[in-house]
Amino acid sequence: MSQEQITPVEGLSALSLDALTSVAYGPEAIIVVLAVAGAGSLHLILPITLAIMALLAILVFSYRQVIDAYPGGGGAYAVSRANLGSGASLVAGAALMVDYTLTVAVSIAAGVGALTSAFPGLRSGTVPICLAILALITLLNLRGLGASARAFLLPTLLFIVGLLAIIVVGLFHPLGLHETQPGRSLISTHGLQVVSVLLILKAFSAGCSALTGVEAIANGVPLFRPPRAKRAKRTEMMLGLILGAMLLGLAVLARRWHVGPRSNETVLSQIMGMAVGRHWAYYVVSLSITVVLALAANTSFGGLPILASLLARDDYLPHLFGLRGDRQVFNNGIWVLAVLSGGLLIAVGGNTNEMIPLFAIGVFTGFTLSQSGLVVHWWRTRPDRWRYRAVVNGGGAVVTALSTLVFLISKFEQGAWIVVITVPLFVLLFLRIHAYYQRAAVELGIGNLPDKPVGKQTLVIVPVSNISQLTRFAICEALSLSANVIAVTVATEQADGEPGYSDELQREWLQWNPGPALEILHTEFSSIVDPIVAFIDQARAKGDRQIVVLIPIVVPSLWRYRLLHNQLDLVLSAALRKHADVVVARVQMPLEVSSR
Amino acid sequence: MSQEQITPVEGLSALSLDALTSVAYGPEAIIVVLAVAGAGSLHLILPITLAIMALLAILVFSYRQVIDAYPGGGGAYAVSRANLGSGASLVAGAALMVDYTLTVAVSIAAGVGALTSAFPGLRSGTVPICLAILALITLLNLRGLGASARAFLLPTLLFIVGLLAIIVVGLFHPLGLHETQPGRSLISTHGLQVVSVLLILKAFSAGCSALTGVEAIANGVPLFRPPRAKRAKRTEMMLGLILGAMLLGLAVLARRWHVGPRSNETVLSQIMGMAVGRHWAYYVVSLSITVVLALAANTSFGGLPILASLLARDDYLPHLFGLRGDRQVFNNGIWVLAVLSGGLLIAVGGNTNEMIPLFAIGVFTGFTLSQSGLVVHWWRTRPDRWRYRAVVNGGGAVVTALSTLVFLISKFEQGAWIVVITVPLFVLLFLRIHAYYQRAAVELGIGNLPDKPVGKQTLVIVPVSNISQLTRFAICEALSLSANVIAVTVATEQADGEPGYSDELQREWLQWNPGPALEILHTEFSSIVDPIVAFIDQARAKGDRQIVVLIPIVVPSLWRYRLLHNQLDLVLSAALRKHADVVVARVQMPLEVSSR
Repeated sequence: MSQEQITPVEGLSALSLDALTSVAYGPEAIIVVLAVAGAGSLHLILPITLAIMALLAILVFSYRQVIDAYPGGGGAYAVSRANLGSGASLVAGAALMVDYTLTVAVSIAAGVGALTSAFPGLRSGTVPICLAILALITLLNLRGLGASARAFLLPTLLFIVGLLAIIVVGLFHPLGLHETQPGRSLISTHGLQVVSVLLILKAFSAGCSALTGVEAIANGVPLFRPPRAKRAKRTEMMLGLILGAMLLGLAVLARRWHVGPRSNETVLSQIMGMAVGRHWAYYVVSLSITVVLALAANTSFGGLPILASLLARDDYLPHLFGLRGDRQVFNNGIWVLAVLSGGLLIAVGGNTNEMIPLFAIGVFTGFTLSQSGLVVHWWRTRPDRWRYRAVVNGGGAVVTALSTLVFLISKFEQGAWIVVITVPLFVLLFLRIHAYYQRAAVELGIGNLPDKPVGKQTLVIVPVSNISQLTRFAICEALSLSANVIAVTVATEQADGEPGYSDELQREWLQWNPGPALEILHTEFSSIVDPIVAFIDQARAKGDRQIVVLIPIVVPSLWRYRLLHNQLDLVLSAALRKHADVVVARVQMPLEVSSR
Repeated sequence: MSQEQITPVEGLSALSLDALTSVAYGPEAIIVVLAVAGAGSLHLILPITLAIMALLAILVFSYRQVIDAYPGGGGAYAVSRANLGSGASLVAGAALMVDYTLTVAVSIAAGVGALTSAFPGLRSGTVPICLAILALITLLNLRGLGASARAFLLPTLLFIVGLLAIIVVGLFHPLGLHETQPGRSLISTHGLQVVSVLLILKAFSAGCSALTGVEAIANGVPLFRPPRAKRAKRTEMMLGLILGAMLLGLAVLARRWHVGPRSNETVLSQIMGMAVGRHWAYYVVSLSITVVLALAANTSFGGLPILASLLARDDYLPHLFGLRGDRQVFNNGIWVLAVLSGGLLIAVGGNTNEMIPLFAIGVFTGFTLSQSGLVVHWWRTRPDRWRYRAVVNGGGAVVTALSTLVFLISKFEQGAWIVVITVPLFVLLFLRIHAYYQRAAVELGIGNLPDKPVGKQTLVIVPVSNISQLTRFAICEALSLSANVIAVTVATEQADGEPGYSDELQREWLQWNPGPALEILHTEFSSIVDPIVAFIDQARAKGDRQIVVLIPIVVPSLWRYRLLHNQLDLVLSAALRKHADVVVARVQMPLEVSSR
């Protein structure tokens, strides 16, 4: 993705899928909570959705301001680090780590939910299908094919246009094309809860899962074509309008048709089925939802490495993660994310609703921290209309903080406690890594100019086993490093005093006369390493020289032949790992041997 | 073991356990075959055992001659290679590979059989107990504790003396202390086979499994104290006498008491139980049998690496196996053996008799090849009494060849076919590896003296990320290698033209003025490797210089801190693997950072 420059519409598919696709689980999450109080309370979906839309509006305006303030990309981590200090930023970082994992798991589970609603026969395979999709996404990302905004465009547009069209048909065709609904209703009929304030708060907080992802555009500003901030703000606004319209439409239809939770069909599928019947339009949009949710999961695979590299640059994660442009490193992050979210999917049996309580806490913690950070930012920088801006962000911060609190309290037992434990553990890890790096920096003397470096005499030791092109190659490189070169070989045969291979090698060596002398070492118990290491130790003891061990290795053209070569490298490199003052180098000679 | 020099009695425990412990399954194997023809045929155990003892005598005398001829240790592989050519030696090598695996599996299964006979409650756990013992042996060998002849002495003596004493008690206390036998008899009562020549041959060949291992002493001559050959021959004779006495005694008792195979008790346990009752002596000897059988399995872990190193030295296995004195290599062989024999134990459910048909074929193939090799040896060298010697070995060869043939025919369907497939597959593998090494030797020009090596100018490139003790350390070593040193760093920050960390680093570098210049490279997509590799490629293009990349790494005192350092080494070493003409070296600085 980093190699493309995207337009606002492409921005929707590259950065907003997570937010847009949350219509697949947000409204359902509200209805699941309301259903506890019986069918009579289902009409409350409309006012609750309106409240969520108000929050969405606040967030959209807040994040448009974030884009203004941080055109370099202002994630919750960066904003809170700049304005609230490292403590808050670490909480944001930890919350985001949890988020990325949950986004992957929730999106895949919701996508499979859409699929099994359309094709109930697949229902028993929910977890395997989830894992297969996860495996596919992981594989594509490992191959470096995960990030192509343009490839995402078509399914995204199909999803947006298709779902909006279905909602419009549903709204203007008031009876809908009623279909018998499979499965049994999950609406409670006994032991009803009274419609309490707590219940409404619970439903509101569950519905807030529909708002996850609205921050992604602000994080990705550098990806846009210039004028970046302007395009990003336009995208944010488009996201707000489309998401708002979808949520409102779905809420109106859910209320009109008294849609309740069902055991084997998602709320979204029920609404779509009633609006247009289970015909081609239903199936096309259902499939597009599955695809787009998988793509939403995919965006986390792009997001986590960016966060990790920021944390690494500030010494809170291993510096390794700072090298996110290097595929090998990137892949480690992909594996970690795949294993974590796969484990989560298995643990909850691919059930989206089990993860919703865990999900929104991290997201809203991030919202709160970046809004609060922005307030501080406006207060510090005092640009035009800073008071107005501070009020917008301050309002956002208060509302999202309250929502987070509602979440924590209302969902604590259903799983929120996991986040309450995990986030501090991450923060602790970050702090321990940071403390280590500080101690290491002192030991390394970073910040103080060290003494001037001085060179030493160098002795190059080349272990050889015969006279060959490889030996010549290695001796050439050794002579390039120093005039002081010695070749060593280990006589492995144990014949009692008979002239053996090593004597012949010595003779041939003298005949060849390559310059460096050949030292023949003897081994007692077939160890080839021990005598070489002993020889190196002797050489180290003789005065202040730099010892370089140059191990000749061949690189065969076919991978399977590697096992047949370079046995010395394998054992000697390992043995010399403890000899810090010895430079161990390999000279690699390519070897072209046909496979037969 | 290679570090001890052993006496004849120690030789019994170090080299003969495999042979001695075969009394735990040899007589049983005969009885299982005879029982097919009904209880009336069980008396045939005595003549069959006498035939096997005759064969044992031939083998003992033959191997005493092997010791004379090959005091350097004459396994079937070495003997047949020297006298019969490489084809025969490869068959011997392959047969021995199969043998070592089977020795481990059979010995452990028989040991557990002795244990569950004594403690029938353990019977249901046969396979797990087998695997636990295998795991223990593997672990001890991985730790290098597998080979201690002296530690084996006590259980070996306990086993020899105890079992011989029980046999003597049984012989002179003619009724025995009869105990009721648990389990049901496995003697056939319907569809009896006639006692045919084939049945007797089958029983004979099954009983020959009692002779496995008699060659081990001849292989291990170099382990003895001088005069080696004399001590080894004495040990071989002791082995023959003890094993013969045990086999004969067990056969007499089995016949006298009409011992048949039983579902849950070994033949040996039945005889011991009848001789002395299930009292303390029975339990002590039973346990010693289990221990000694486990030790017999253990000796294979010492034997396989020796065989593999011989094959490797002759280019039939990867040269890696030639370094058997180096623990890292040794351990690979241990893992291979453990996995193969563990798989076999699971496949046959820990049942010794299932493996007997596979077992003796390999062993007897080895016997035949080394006897035949000796005949050629005597014929070629013609020492004193060579005719007599050749007749002894020739007789041995004929008898063991016939036995092998009997085995193959009578046991083909019961599992011998597995060996018939496996041995040629091993031979094929050996040949392919050999052919590769020959082609590689041509490519490497082994045997021709190459041109004289010449040195080139050297440019040392040191990637650095800051100015620290580590940087100084690396520059010192670089200056030791060449006067031509350049430091490179990658500016990872992407700030749009703002002066950043890299400018400051450049400023500090000039202030430090270490000698080499600092080259600042720029990265576009956070990759630190790409710009460095591009820089190296540029340097390579500029004329005929030897490029050395010196990667500074720190070696923290605690292992877990490694993850926090050396990220550059990880990605850069991998990226430079394809640049064969570049020497990649690490300079390692130890770093002492307290754990908190």
